[in-house]
Amino acid sequence: MCDLTIVAHSGDMDKLMAAFIIATGAAASGRRVSMFFTFWGLNALRNGRRVKGKGLLERLAGWMMPRGPARLPSSRMNMFGMGPRFFKRLMRRKHVEELPQLITLAEEMDVKMIACRMSMDLLGFREEELRTGIAYGGVATYLLDADQAGHNLFI
Amino acid sequence: MCDLTIVAHSGDMDKLMAAFIIATGAAASGRRVSMFFTFWGLNALRNGRRVKGKGLLERLAGWMMPRGPARLPSSRMNMFGMGPRFFKRLMRRKHVEELPQLITLAEEMDVKMIACRMSMDLLGFREEELRTGIAYGGVATYLLDADQAGHNLFI
Amino acid sequence: MCDLTIVAHSGDMDKLMAAFIIATGAAASGRRVSMFFTFWGLNALRNGRRVKGKGLLERLAGWMMPRGPARLPSSRMNMFGMGPRFFKRLMRRKHVEELPQLITLAEEMDVKMIACRMSMDLLGFREEELRTGIAYGGVATYLLDADQAGHNLFI
Repeated sequence: MCDLTIVAHSGDMDKLMAAFIIATGAAASGRRVSMFFTFWGLNALRNGRRVKGKGLLERLAGWMMPRGPARLPSSRMNMFGMGPRFFKRLMRRKHVEELPQLITLAEEMDVKMIACRMSMDLLGFREEELRTGIAYGGVATYLLDADQAGHNLFI
Repeated sequence: MCDLTIVAHSGDMDKLMAAFIIATGAAASGRRVSMFFTFWGLNALRNGRRVKGKGLLERLAGWMMPRGPARLPSSRMNMFGMGPRFFKRLMRRKHVEELPQLITLAEEMDVKMIACRMSMDLLGFREEELRTGIAYGGVATYLLDADQAGHNLFI
Repeated sequence: MCDLTIVAHSGDMDKLMAAFIIATGAAASGRRVSMFFTFWGLNALRNGRRVKGKGLLERLAGWMMPRGPARLPSSRMNMFGMGPRFFKRLMRRKHVEELPQLITLAEEMDVKMIACRMSMDLLGFREEELRTGIAYGGVATYLLDADQAGHNLFI
């Protein structure tokens, strides 16, 4: 069963933070949450590892995208990479959890995290490049969760 | 009746692809899907035709926006138009359907596509500039579909 | 009770317009609507007032963000601030309500507007800087509304 589904499509730090704050808030109060990571959202699940044997296009795609949740840009006030650093300072001052901590928290709270196989294939991600403990699936997997949930978001 | 509604507000190729992959995936498994195209999302429905008798502001708006689904920018790694071309190469290599094919597929699967009349008026789009076979409506039309569906997304 | 919830995360004029058009459309036909303003969405609620006694980081954040709904950028065709002015001309010509009017309309229609306390704290907003008549709350407040509503959007 599932109460809340979130499609995490965006690779923006602030949007992924919002996604994980809603997901962990819901899980903390006993709701069952399923997150489906597509396109740029997959970058939140990267573990930073480099993998051999990729083609040129896949290597380029991997190189152009941020290598994990600590390196994501901000959707606003990014200022050529200054923005996220500015926010991290604000967050530390305000004792707000940063994205990598929020992801670990979601994992501990049994938030289901599904990496979209089609997006992985398109962007050239292998399972070894993504964090352990996640699930893999496609649109059909997501739709089954969304059928049960009355609360579904695309972020 | 309706199971899934999607507001397609974004004009980004990757977000519209996500919208159509979810819509066609849902329709393929018998779910009834309604898509409501507002603002930049309308560009996905443009047929590329030019229309005479528009005012200056409307001509400018039409000229500044991409003339159909094959010419949309990407929300990330757009790189002055390089991004979409790069993705199209990746998609072809991975045998992922491109956006124009996904739209045709949605049409064949009876996904209801509604162009928002207010957005059309605002951006100066006429019916002759949008693909045939679509419906026209306003927020009230969308809300009636969303009332029935338990799965509603804004993309 | 609640029929529709909207998380207003974006600070883009066109996305906030879409949020308020859907919200006021729903409220006009008797649906109960709850809007939760997080991150950049909070800028829609700013009244333009300046507050003393802020720290440097908070002053910087406040200075970098638009001071209220009349000054928000556009998600597309922003063109260094030209875009919103161009849209406002189009809107006036087409007699479409501008964002500040839509917000007042939402208020008159009893649309519940909740400012996210955590985002306020993070971005350094005080209650005196936001419009009167709004509510304050956290993710838990939002989740309770979303539990009841079958129609939930993240914008």
